[in-house]
Amino acid sequence: MLSTTPRTTLGRKKHRAVTDRSALHAVLDEGLICHLGVVRDGVPLVLPTGYGRDGDTLYLHGSTGASSLRTAADLEVCVTVTLLDGIVYSRSVNNHSMNYRSAVIFGTAKPVVEPEAKMHGLKVLTDHLAPGSWEHAREVNAKEFAAVSVLALDLAEASVKMRAEGPDDEPEDRDADAAWAGVLPVRTVFGEPEPSADLSPGWEVPAHVRGRE
Amino acid sequence: MLSTTPRTTLGRKKHRAVTDRSALHAVLDEGLICHLGVVRDGVPLVLPTGYGRDGDTLYLHGSTGASSLRTAADLEVCVTVTLLDGIVYSRSVNNHSMNYRSAVIFGTAKPVVEPEAKMHGLKVLTDHLAPGSWEHAREVNAKEFAAVSVLALDLAEASVKMRAEGPDDEPEDRDADAAWAGVLPVRTVFGEPEPSADLSPGWEVPAHVRGRE
Repeated sequence: MLSTTPRTTLGRKKHRAVTDRSALHAVLDEGLICHLGVVRDGVPLVLPTGYGRDGDTLYLHGSTGASSLRTAADLEVCVTVTLLDGIVYSRSVNNHSMNYRSAVIFGTAKPVVEPEAKMHGLKVLTDHLAPGSWEHAREVNAKEFAAVSVLALDLAEASVKMRAEGPDDEPEDRDADAAWAGVLPVRTVFGEPEPSADLSPGWEVPAHVRGRE
Repeated sequence: MLSTTPRTTLGRKKHRAVTDRSALHAVLDEGLICHLGVVRDGVPLVLPTGYGRDGDTLYLHGSTGASSLRTAADLEVCVTVTLLDGIVYSRSVNNHSMNYRSAVIFGTAKPVVEPEAKMHGLKVLTDHLAPGSWEHAREVNAKEFAAVSVLALDLAEASVKMRAEGPDDEPEDRDADAAWAGVLPVRTVFGEPEPSADLSPGWEVPAHVRGRE
């Protein structure tokens, strides 16, 4: 079960809360980027960030453009991953909605410094961003390893919220039958791989790229 | 030009900064949801939120599940919209990256209370979520209008960042020619409209839904 601290207990639409850990893992594994929130100089800062999950640890790419993320020791964060699944067209403007799955995680992101753990974090990040690349591409060298930053966040305090249903119209609007109602699905898809302009001739797109779903 | 306050001046990879206002508008107009960051009880909170843009005003759906968003008068926020365009496969693990466009806006979100302005905000939100629905669906009634909450955020302090290029490999990795390099495009697409189970027979999917791109 996911935690139910006050800040992860939904204040409204509680029926949208999902409380099992597999749902949290599924959202995190399907998402490609997270939105990382921190407090900087007393105001919020939200940046798109690469991540990866291993068990109940979320690894975050520490080089996101905010210097505070790279220099802080422990960092209070909120990490949110949202999958938009559809636009819900209701018979009334007011009941329009979205179908989605979202995960919100609170906690302290800690820099991973121990070399073996840091290398593992890099592998998890790479496996999430580009499955197969850890094996296919040139490995991280010592200089790169020293320059890169990996943060780890425990998935202890997290909540998942979702909506996955058709329009929820008022009875009088259904009776009036004056507007269309339904869901327009939204999907994230991969396009045709685009080889680098400087790639030498003879390369075929490898299976881990071509076959990605 | 976009503002260049210290917090919207990029700390690294400055060449990724885009400083014209049309680029900001383009990112906001193409995105479907934003991630709204606030500080609550001293810690960050990031929630997916519906939005819409009119000129240099961003309207936010005030009912996002966080009670603080509905009760606060003026709210210091950071709103981030990210469009993921591709996964960049480089010849080295370290140079893997993403192509993306992101907008980050700082400011004070203010509740829109004046009725005409609030109705306009609702129209902007609806036009963004579901273009055509404002004209097609049943209009907002007095009870719904009173219950809904709209926030307005000025786009004065904003930054846009993007990456839209192929792999940036080290010369020695290009020479080694030991790995594939290229971009796997990522796209958000609409699927086939799914009529509501309780829709009466005879309805065809209207053009504003079927023709949406």
